[in-house]
Amino acid sequence: MKSLMKFLVFSLLFSLSLCFQESSNSHQLPRNMILEYPDDGGKADQEEVNLQCTSWRFAVEANNLNSWKTIPQECADYVKNYMMGKGYLLDLERVSNEAAVFARSVNVEEDSKDAWIFDIDETLLSNLPYYTDHGYGLEVFDGVEFDKWVGKGMAPAIEPSLRLYEEVLSLGFKVFLLTGRSEKMRDVTAQNLMNVGYKNWDKLILRDTEDHGKLATIFKSEKRSEMMKEGFRIQGNSGDQWSDLLGFPMSTRSFKLPNPMYYIP
Amino acid sequence: MKSLMKFLVFSLLFSLSLCFQESSNSHQLPRNMILEYPDDGGKADQEEVNLQCTSWRFAVEANNLNSWKTIPQECADYVKNYMMGKGYLLDLERVSNEAAVFARSVNVEEDSKDAWIFDIDETLLSNLPYYTDHGYGLEVFDGVEFDKWVGKGMAPAIEPSLRLYEEVLSLGFKVFLLTGRSEKMRDVTAQNLMNVGYKNWDKLILRDTEDHGKLATIFKSEKRSEMMKEGFRIQGNSGDQWSDLLGFPMSTRSFKLPNPMYYIP
Repeated sequence: MKSLMKFLVFSLLFSLSLCFQESSNSHQLPRNMILEYPDDGGKADQEEVNLQCTSWRFAVEANNLNSWKTIPQECADYVKNYMMGKGYLLDLERVSNEAAVFARSVNVEEDSKDAWIFDIDETLLSNLPYYTDHGYGLEVFDGVEFDKWVGKGMAPAIEPSLRLYEEVLSLGFKVFLLTGRSEKMRDVTAQNLMNVGYKNWDKLILRDTEDHGKLATIFKSEKRSEMMKEGFRIQGNSGDQWSDLLGFPMSTRSFKLPNPMYYIP
Repeated sequence: MKSLMKFLVFSLLFSLSLCFQESSNSHQLPRNMILEYPDDGGKADQEEVNLQCTSWRFAVEANNLNSWKTIPQECADYVKNYMMGKGYLLDLERVSNEAAVFARSVNVEEDSKDAWIFDIDETLLSNLPYYTDHGYGLEVFDGVEFDKWVGKGMAPAIEPSLRLYEEVLSLGFKVFLLTGRSEKMRDVTAQNLMNVGYKNWDKLILRDTEDHGKLATIFKSEKRSEMMKEGFRIQGNSGDQWSDLLGFPMSTRSFKLPNPMYYIP
């Protein structure tokens, strides 16, 4: 009965919050579809949670949210289902396919100055085994625990990214790996990458002592500036965080991999 | 008790479905959920279409897609349902709420140089009545037909944007309206905006003769550059197209309104 009570309270609060959103106004668009809640127990509520959490996920992926530290409590199951089900894989495949189409369209010059940047975590390597044990973003990030996981060098490849990586290399791009991981993780990171199939990158750039405390956007922009000064044309940039992609300079095309589990400013 | 039973049954099914997703293969990522198509007519296929179209929509909103002219044929119903149902409204409300939170956090200075840019179509005004008659993006864009609609000056306000607009003004920002509409639409556009509640903008910027043929990203970046040269600090920028938001300079924060119906490069 305790869980029934909790469920009813949750449903009530949820419905109330929607009521307030649905004030009448003839010019309001889109024309509201008033959800009728039939006598089917939890089904309509589950639909409502799905709608709300899908909307939240889109806000994450479009970079509309203000800084956040954990996923919404009510989206815990939604995020888990997305990550472990088909949705995440479909999104990863789509973004890699679109990136490959763009990569093939670039006229790669013979001066070896056309470059592609890849982020590492949740871009080339997956930390899903770690996040499976830590609530898929429901727990506040624990740097000490996470570093232990990284130290094992056991992160699997994100397969669609590996295919893109290989194609980008074969097209003649220089490949830079630009990660927020610390310099002290260089060896284990390189070994992990090689073990799961990533080879022949041009440079692996990690956070050095003077980069600690910098926002990711700043750190990564500085590194892209250096590449630009060295004459590289940054054609593509693949990352799961907008802080991998925004700032100055930006690449010709950016590719945002899905990640509803955490946010790095 | 009836609803309790249904709730329990639902929870049980939900837990079971999670169990099946968590099959053992520690390194394969994400663990594939093989969709079995049971003998239930079109239902599993409908789920598949929903998954695919949601993934496509995510790629639109995260700006991962290469240039596209119409929505995928198989997503026609999906896009219609999204636009006319609750999903679009939820997304509009979320982006306006997040933008308002950011706007309140800006320390607006007394020199009147803090600015907010709004795009018009699908940002302040909705062309959904037009797109309802034209397949929600399924038809190739017809500039002549669309201009007839614009010429009527009948586009309704997007209510969550109107609330943001008013709040941004009341916080002391200068408001610039920056649109791809042609200069010849100035009067009807201004009248349409005022009729549905938008007032007191600082400047309405449309495409002049020399801007025709420019990509939206270029045209809008040039206009933002001019603002910057005039000493404005572009704090916020709201638009439904990434070409409203990307380029140089960018605003401190960009807000991407949802639009799965069309793409402007």
